[in-house]
Amino acid sequence: MSPDSHRAAVLDFDRAQRIGLHEAVFCSHKTPLQIEHILTEFHRRDTPCLLTRIDADKVAALAVDHRESLDFDPLSRTAFAPGPFPDIDLSGVAIVSGGTSDAAVCLEAARSLQFHGIRTELFQDVGVTGLWRLMDRIEEIRRYPVVIAVAGMEGALFSVLGGLVASVVIAVPTSVGYGVSEGGGLALNSALGSCAPGVLSVNIDNGYGAACAAARVVNGR
Amino acid sequence: MSPDSHRAAVLDFDRAQRIGLHEAVFCSHKTPLQIEHILTEFHRRDTPCLLTRIDADKVAALAVDHRESLDFDPLSRTAFAPGPFPDIDLSGVAIVSGGTSDAAVCLEAARSLQFHGIRTELFQDVGVTGLWRLMDRIEEIRRYPVVIAVAGMEGALFSVLGGLVASVVIAVPTSVGYGVSEGGGLALNSALGSCAPGVLSVNIDNGYGAACAAARVVNGR
Amino acid sequence: MSPDSHRAAVLDFDRAQRIGLHEAVFCSHKTPLQIEHILTEFHRRDTPCLLTRIDADKVAALAVDHRESLDFDPLSRTAFAPGPFPDIDLSGVAIVSGGTSDAAVCLEAARSLQFHGIRTELFQDVGVTGLWRLMDRIEEIRRYPVVIAVAGMEGALFSVLGGLVASVVIAVPTSVGYGVSEGGGLALNSALGSCAPGVLSVNIDNGYGAACAAARVVNGR
Amino acid sequence: MSPDSHRAAVLDFDRAQRIGLHEAVFCSHKTPLQIEHILTEFHRRDTPCLLTRIDADKVAALAVDHRESLDFDPLSRTAFAPGPFPDIDLSGVAIVSGGTSDAAVCLEAARSLQFHGIRTELFQDVGVTGLWRLMDRIEEIRRYPVVIAVAGMEGALFSVLGGLVASVVIAVPTSVGYGVSEGGGLALNSALGSCAPGVLSVNIDNGYGAACAAARVVNGR
Amino acid sequence: MSPDSHRAAVLDFDRAQRIGLHEAVFCSHKTPLQIEHILTEFHRRDTPCLLTRIDADKVAALAVDHRESLDFDPLSRTAFAPGPFPDIDLSGVAIVSGGTSDAAVCLEAARSLQFHGIRTELFQDVGVTGLWRLMDRIEEIRRYPVVIAVAGMEGALFSVLGGLVASVVIAVPTSVGYGVSEGGGLALNSALGSCAPGVLSVNIDNGYGAACAAARVVNGR
Amino acid sequence: MSPDSHRAAVLDFDRAQRIGLHEAVFCSHKTPLQIEHILTEFHRRDTPCLLTRIDADKVAALAVDHRESLDFDPLSRTAFAPGPFPDIDLSGVAIVSGGTSDAAVCLEAARSLQFHGIRTELFQDVGVTGLWRLMDRIEEIRRYPVVIAVAGMEGALFSVLGGLVASVVIAVPTSVGYGVSEGGGLALNSALGSCAPGVLSVNIDNGYGAACAAARVVNGR
Amino acid sequence: MSPDSHRAAVLDFDRAQRIGLHEAVFCSHKTPLQIEHILTEFHRRDTPCLLTRIDADKVAALAVDHRESLDFDPLSRTAFAPGPFPDIDLSGVAIVSGGTSDAAVCLEAARSLQFHGIRTELFQDVGVTGLWRLMDRIEEIRRYPVVIAVAGMEGALFSVLGGLVASVVIAVPTSVGYGVSEGGGLALNSALGSCAPGVLSVNIDNGYGAACAAARVVNGR
Amino acid sequence: MSPDSHRAAVLDFDRAQRIGLHEAVFCSHKTPLQIEHILTEFHRRDTPCLLTRIDADKVAALAVDHRESLDFDPLSRTAFAPGPFPDIDLSGVAIVSGGTSDAAVCLEAARSLQFHGIRTELFQDVGVTGLWRLMDRIEEIRRYPVVIAVAGMEGALFSVLGGLVASVVIAVPTSVGYGVSEGGGLALNSALGSCAPGVLSVNIDNGYGAACAAARVVNGR
Repeated sequence: MSPDSHRAAVLDFDRAQRIGLHEAVFCSHKTPLQIEHILTEFHRRDTPCLLTRIDADKVAALAVDHRESLDFDPLSRTAFAPGPFPDIDLSGVAIVSGGTSDAAVCLEAARSLQFHGIRTELFQDVGVTGLWRLMDRIEEIRRYPVVIAVAGMEGALFSVLGGLVASVVIAVPTSVGYGVSEGGGLALNSALGSCAPGVLSVNIDNGYGAACAAARVVNGR
Repeated sequence: MSPDSHRAAVLDFDRAQRIGLHEAVFCSHKTPLQIEHILTEFHRRDTPCLLTRIDADKVAALAVDHRESLDFDPLSRTAFAPGPFPDIDLSGVAIVSGGTSDAAVCLEAARSLQFHGIRTELFQDVGVTGLWRLMDRIEEIRRYPVVIAVAGMEGALFSVLGGLVASVVIAVPTSVGYGVSEGGGLALNSALGSCAPGVLSVNIDNGYGAACAAARVVNGR
Repeated sequence: MSPDSHRAAVLDFDRAQRIGLHEAVFCSHKTPLQIEHILTEFHRRDTPCLLTRIDADKVAALAVDHRESLDFDPLSRTAFAPGPFPDIDLSGVAIVSGGTSDAAVCLEAARSLQFHGIRTELFQDVGVTGLWRLMDRIEEIRRYPVVIAVAGMEGALFSVLGGLVASVVIAVPTSVGYGVSEGGGLALNSALGSCAPGVLSVNIDNGYGAACAAARVVNGR
Repeated sequence: MSPDSHRAAVLDFDRAQRIGLHEAVFCSHKTPLQIEHILTEFHRRDTPCLLTRIDADKVAALAVDHRESLDFDPLSRTAFAPGPFPDIDLSGVAIVSGGTSDAAVCLEAARSLQFHGIRTELFQDVGVTGLWRLMDRIEEIRRYPVVIAVAGMEGALFSVLGGLVASVVIAVPTSVGYGVSEGGGLALNSALGSCAPGVLSVNIDNGYGAACAAARVVNGR
Repeated sequence: MSPDSHRAAVLDFDRAQRIGLHEAVFCSHKTPLQIEHILTEFHRRDTPCLLTRIDADKVAALAVDHRESLDFDPLSRTAFAPGPFPDIDLSGVAIVSGGTSDAAVCLEAARSLQFHGIRTELFQDVGVTGLWRLMDRIEEIRRYPVVIAVAGMEGALFSVLGGLVASVVIAVPTSVGYGVSEGGGLALNSALGSCAPGVLSVNIDNGYGAACAAARVVNGR
Repeated sequence: MSPDSHRAAVLDFDRAQRIGLHEAVFCSHKTPLQIEHILTEFHRRDTPCLLTRIDADKVAALAVDHRESLDFDPLSRTAFAPGPFPDIDLSGVAIVSGGTSDAAVCLEAARSLQFHGIRTELFQDVGVTGLWRLMDRIEEIRRYPVVIAVAGMEGALFSVLGGLVASVVIAVPTSVGYGVSEGGGLALNSALGSCAPGVLSVNIDNGYGAACAAARVVNGR
Repeated sequence: MSPDSHRAAVLDFDRAQRIGLHEAVFCSHKTPLQIEHILTEFHRRDTPCLLTRIDADKVAALAVDHRESLDFDPLSRTAFAPGPFPDIDLSGVAIVSGGTSDAAVCLEAARSLQFHGIRTELFQDVGVTGLWRLMDRIEEIRRYPVVIAVAGMEGALFSVLGGLVASVVIAVPTSVGYGVSEGGGLALNSALGSCAPGVLSVNIDNGYGAACAAARVVNGR
Repeated sequence: MSPDSHRAAVLDFDRAQRIGLHEAVFCSHKTPLQIEHILTEFHRRDTPCLLTRIDADKVAALAVDHRESLDFDPLSRTAFAPGPFPDIDLSGVAIVSGGTSDAAVCLEAARSLQFHGIRTELFQDVGVTGLWRLMDRIEEIRRYPVVIAVAGMEGALFSVLGGLVASVVIAVPTSVGYGVSEGGGLALNSALGSCAPGVLSVNIDNGYGAACAAARVVNGR
């Protein structure tokens, strides 16, 4: 066990290439020392980095060279130095589900899209506790510009998927579960609280709503 | 007071022209009589109609001509007869907020998009209790293919906006409020539980997340 | 994106004429700079303005001319300079509902009022996601001194209605909904947390209670 | 202990004279036998009675003469036989509070009304655990057509007051409390769940909102 | 409206004679000025007074003569000057209920006490919204050394009763209610959060538990 | 592992001798077979037994000899055959706490009783995870007719203590805890939901309330 | 979109080899048709399968050959046909965390184990939204018989890890998060509601508790 | 009542011998004086002691000799001086339950272990309100290296058991209960919030999950 716990961050420098978004550093619970170490790593690789939830006190506590390299805005509590962006070209709608119990909600979404004249492809039962199931299909899923992700229980699918595709990810939490996951509130919160950047959510079991949102994306293309 | 409460529905036949989505009828709490009346109105105008949350028992209780006109699927509990679809051509990102107290979150979203190289326009303080404020700007807002809506308190902005624009609507509930609206949970649930079809939500105060989601839409174009 | 986010407020100077109540500024989440900008706008138009939730520290941080123009009370955390008031003359009870699923609760209220010898008029299915439905009837609704507003789901109707009429507005949240809106708690909180000034609420599905409250208003006339 | 627990109801035949509203019988948790016993008591005194939350099955289970004497509506689940109504003549606004800790909220309401040009009278520290405190002032309070009731903790004041005055009663729950009453949610729910007919509520600590609601009543007079 | 809101407290000097307990002043939300005013009133009448939740800072802020008259303990945050105590002589068990819907729980308590060989008397349907119903029976109820109070909805009965009798008061919240009072949680919290000193509670609908607690009191006599 | 899971009950035949209360059987979640097995055990030892939450259907499903031996009441859902009762002679007030962190609340209770002229003895830091700590003092605690039990965290002390003493047990849940036990709600619910018959509770951290309740017991002696 | 949604299950036949546990099928939300399809797949590969939460009605609805192949127990609602088991040989304690913000809790666990004389290895910042970070270290982690997994936010790490290692997995949810993940409740529920079989949890931020549990495993070896 | 409440701690010096874990002192709610008293007691007996949740301010407030004797780490907020450890030799799986109503969950666990080829022994109906029931069997239970504890209601069994055995303790909270214990959430939180060091929990009613976790322990042996 090392005392250098502020050096522990494992940074995701290839995120922009993988999902079209750069890594952002959520600073609320990090010490200035941890933030400095992270900035150094980004600088070393000449990669842009966005800091969020960083207040003026924390910026003031950074070493002067780090502080001066940043474009800081106190009201939004953001700081960054900008960089290059990805070129992405995609088309279509995928519906991905965690388990067979989610079939009814998947079909509500699929049929609602069909009604609006939009083609869908179903990728069912690829829940992340048997990770190979999702990894076997991920290249196919990645090709769709919109992915509707349907899952109940603890909804871990949303976070894993959000970190693997550059598509618009619309989570539909389902009421499949019992005990702490009864009623779908846990899956919903897992979608909203996901660490994966830019995962969106609709109400529990709302396959229709997800389809409408997907149609808004497709129609606006 | 009339006894004909099953005839009360005021249908939104122009929705497809306005927001690119047809009206859907949420049937969980409606009687078969109410549903028949609604179907008759749609048929009379030759407009397509999507029924959701309609189970086999309720379909069986409909008059035979209504029942037979529907393409019903029992697992998804959807039924419809398809129709024509809109042509829409749009481009850009609008950030719309309910009040000046939401400025920090608006800026977190705006700067995160700026960081990803995407242009934004701010429409602040257009909350719906002074409806004219929103109506004065709605034609400008409508031109953007993605609208980030930022609101705290009871979050009524999300529903009104979702019914006025065809754009992708990403709600960012904020923690502005007190009593029952303290912490932002009420605004969040208003986004998720919105009657407006296809409103999407991110976590409370998550301007960064909304920006990432918007970037996914823009990047996939 | 402008750095002048403290200038963003769009003020509702005509509120007194529209609903008989002046605009009030909820200061908990606003900076002194934002408050000063708002006061300047009011002063420029010679319109009275009520500040609420403003503590002594925030008052002390205002520019001296703003500070001295205010009648400030530290215990109630209110500050104002008074002004002219509206003349309003009204009579009757309207029952306005968001959707056909709310019919049972509307009728409980209507019949309870009928039992107490009070006339009612029903305005059903005028939910705000198809805003034209409400706007088509708003002049009729405005004529009633008491409006019972009945809505489930996210209850956005309460806020929009409260900003459009000068009548007493009694919200009856209904248990129509699913997921986050299941059971009516969301609609209830939207009524209580509404930004529209002076919206009142009764318990979920309590059409009888709303009728009793309306009767108290009518009887006291 | 008698087995005749269905005969236990102690009915409030003088309610119409006291508060201008007839007694209503909430039937959800009552047996048909209990309801019949109550109806018999009302008939014996030739007093009108409103039944709420009574479904068709429960009506069908009543003895035939009781059943036929009722005007029953299945959708609203109400039943009644109408009767005479009170004449009431009142004017003004009273602010009544449970304890000295509620003073700040009382003043927010009082000053907001003062701002709108409306006169108020304060009746502070008349909480119901020392019932004589309220009873000493009740005749004075009763003279006001609108009563703003301000209380934290368990909010029992709202129910007692609602049963003693014919005025419009607007509850303002306060955040005064600890443990289960911390934050004001308990007092709020006590207002909403009150057995007293027609008690209205605003958000926690919302003295301003209660004043606006009171102004709507007064302005509409 | 007077600016002297710190003088508003209406003190319950006869509480010791009425219920065998002196008034206690809950200081968490009170200013030093309000506390001093209260102490002065007690001193003037030579009546003992117990201060609770008063921290060292607040004691230090009191005028020196008030401060020195108090026996203050910082860990328990209590302060007092002791006084005379009541003589009370009582015997028996009363079961008091708010409404006829609570009959099943009353009987569970009554029969459980009968099983343990203890006599009971039932006082049903004396809910506080028709206060005369309780006042008509209060002298009889007061004679019993143990009172089991059974109520659902908002449970205001517990607070009113606790302020009127010197007996041991055991609240049994019932699951009678709907909306915010559904399931009995509101009535339970009203019992626990009651302002009346020394009200005790058992679980929702737990007539058996209340009977056991009453038996513990009676057996220990 | 035996298939005879209905024979698994280990009955507490000596409870009446130990705590002055007979064992009661909570029947909601038990099968008729399990209940019959329990009744047989009681009959074999000629010991009285109280059944609670047993409905008419479950009684009808019992073997005829069991059914006929019971005095059943359908409204209270109780059934029993009565028996002999204990003689107990006790005097005084014990304050028992789970940990040193609960000291402030213990002292609030102790000083409030001292103020009312009632003697107390403190038994601190006898939490049940080191069971010997409680067992070492249990004979001393048992001598007091009233025991105030003070505990935070998961509040297991209340249940263990309630099963070991015949005294009145008043639980004071404290806000000592973190994560799921933060704020005291868990300890409160453990008191209310305790399997030990007749445990009573006051609000979180309410040492004063517990003292008042204890004073009511002592004063009524 | 295929109508054969009952054929969608993707089964994890290699789970026993990977984590020493066979796949179990949670039947609460599955139709008999879906279950039959799953059983057929298992039979075809001669692999054992455990059905949980399957009631007698659902078993009765299966085709006769499926029904007869199962050892069904109605009380536990389980059914299976047994099979071969893995041989596993492991030793040690790994501490795996989602992000650098979790460092304090990791260290509390590490130091508590060090105090008990047990060696640990830290694998920090391997959260699943950048899945490669975890996959890079998974072979090292897998060697430890006990894995303490530390994560805040939505806690997706617990489910992914639980599906990749055969070790004892002890989740420590942390209070790192905001909005719906504030306080750690979401991460806690994700651990408890995880689809990965046999994931265990301790209280929020309870690194000490996880260390004690790990010590119980190591000491018992 | 003594003023020396900081001396009240009753320390568990034999814990290491009894359950293989030393006593740890949770310092969040303790004063420096209370902590010093505890350290002195440990030093006097030459026994190791682990302090958790102790921040730098509290350490700085300790007397210098206490402060210097400690190995303190500010990030993990732990401090200790290490010591000797137990030798334990155990083998097998026990399933212990609080009441007969928990039988179905016990059997789900037992059969799931049987399916994985692992032997179990059932100890049913040994709930802690009749403590002798558990104490009669504790020596047998202690012999098993893994104990699955199954309980509903307030779940006090988990804490008592965790303080009596050195085995791995896996709590399975059940949904047996009513009112505050309805659904199993209270029992779950009692497991998670237990004062007994190292108690682990799975989801409500999840006998299968507990069996899988137990299998992970046994397989890794």
